[in-house]
Parts: sequence; C-alpha cells; structure tokens
Amino acid sequence: MQRICFCLQVKRDRLEEYKERHRSVWPEMREALRQAGWGNYTLFLRDDGLLIGYVETPDFERALHEMAITEVNRRWQAEMKDFFESDSGLGADEQMRPVGEVFHLD
Amino acid sequence: MQRICFCLQVKRDRLEEYKERHRSVWPEMREALRQAGWGNYTLFLRDDGLLIGYVETPDFERALHEMAITEVNRRWQAEMKDFFESDSGLGADEQMRPVGEVFHLD
Repeated sequence: MQRICFCLQVKRDRLEEYKERHRSVWPEMREALRQAGWGNYTLFLRDDGLLIGYVETPDFERALHEMAITEVNRRWQAEMKDFFESDSGLGADEQMRPVGEVFHLD
Repeated sequence: MQRICFCLQVKRDRLEEYKERHRSVWPEMREALRQAGWGNYTLFLRDDGLLIGYVETPDFERALHEMAITEVNRRWQAEMKDFFESDSGLGADEQMRPVGEVFHLD
C-alpha cells in the first residue's frame, strides 16, 4: 500500500465555498473514488489556502487514472477547477504530485 | 480516532541532513511515539522544505503531551531544533498545529 501526500493551492477568496462544497461531495463521486482504490483519503485545508491531501492506495498513478476515465470525475473536476490557483490550466487532479516520504511509523 | 495533519518548515540548506536523520530515528524514539499513541505516522518533505506530518491518534493534544514528558523526546527535539525555521524559538513538537480537515473518505 502506498501512502501519498499531495499539495494544491486553493484561491484565498474561495476557501469557505470550497469547504462548503466538500461537506456534500456527491455520493457517486465518493463511490467512484472507492472503486478507483482511494482509501483513507483526507483533505486538510490551511487558512492560507494550502490544500493537503493524504491517501492510501495500492498504486497512486493507477488510482489517478482510474478516476480520470470516469464521467463523474470529469463533472466534479470541471466544477472544482476555478477554486484552484493554476498557471498550467490543468485540473486539480492533474496537479497531484506526490510529496516524498521521509519517515513512517505504523 | 483523530486524523491530524500539521506543517513545519525545514531550513532549505538542511534538507538532505534532515532526510538522513529520519532514515535512522532512534528505536527508543519510535517506541516512545508508539507508547504515546502516535499511529500510522508519516512525515512528507517537499523540495522547498515544507514538512507535512500525518498521524492518527485518539487525542492529539494528549499524544503531544505524552511525548513532551519523555526524556528521549527532549533529547530528540534538542537535536532537531536547528533544522527548523522558527521565529518563536519553540521546538518542532511545540509548533505542531493541526490543519483543519475538510473531507474524508474511509
């Protein structure tokens, strides 16, 4: 099982709306994540907009791909895109780069 | 069980040394963490020195306290202190403020 951490940047003037949207993530989006192998998945949001994701999955590249090909993810990411700072024009899920692990204790 | 995320800032000129030190955390420090309730504890380090901690524990304030009163933690934190950016003069473990959770999927 891989432990993955990634960081994204939410626009500071949209933090409250971002939080609100994540209180009611679509059930079909939650189910798609599960099916794609996203386990023990948590998002943390710092006051300055730094979004930190933590997820456990057998293979993160595969988990990203399995989501990317779903229709519900396309709809969700389209709605989320404007919440994020992005120079690249990429969607949030296309910017999830793993941060290196330096220590682990079970 | 609480899921806790915290951020610290490692000095950019000491990243390699920080990583090296965490490849061989003292066994007695690992055991003290376990005894204090630190479970599934991972540290991730971004290239710019952002250190992200993720830990699962019944009560984070208590887990911090249970470590703070150990002799091995005092020794460990004394050796780690200079690795971190700090305006406050506090040790790393005294700067671990939980980042708010906005989403979770089991």
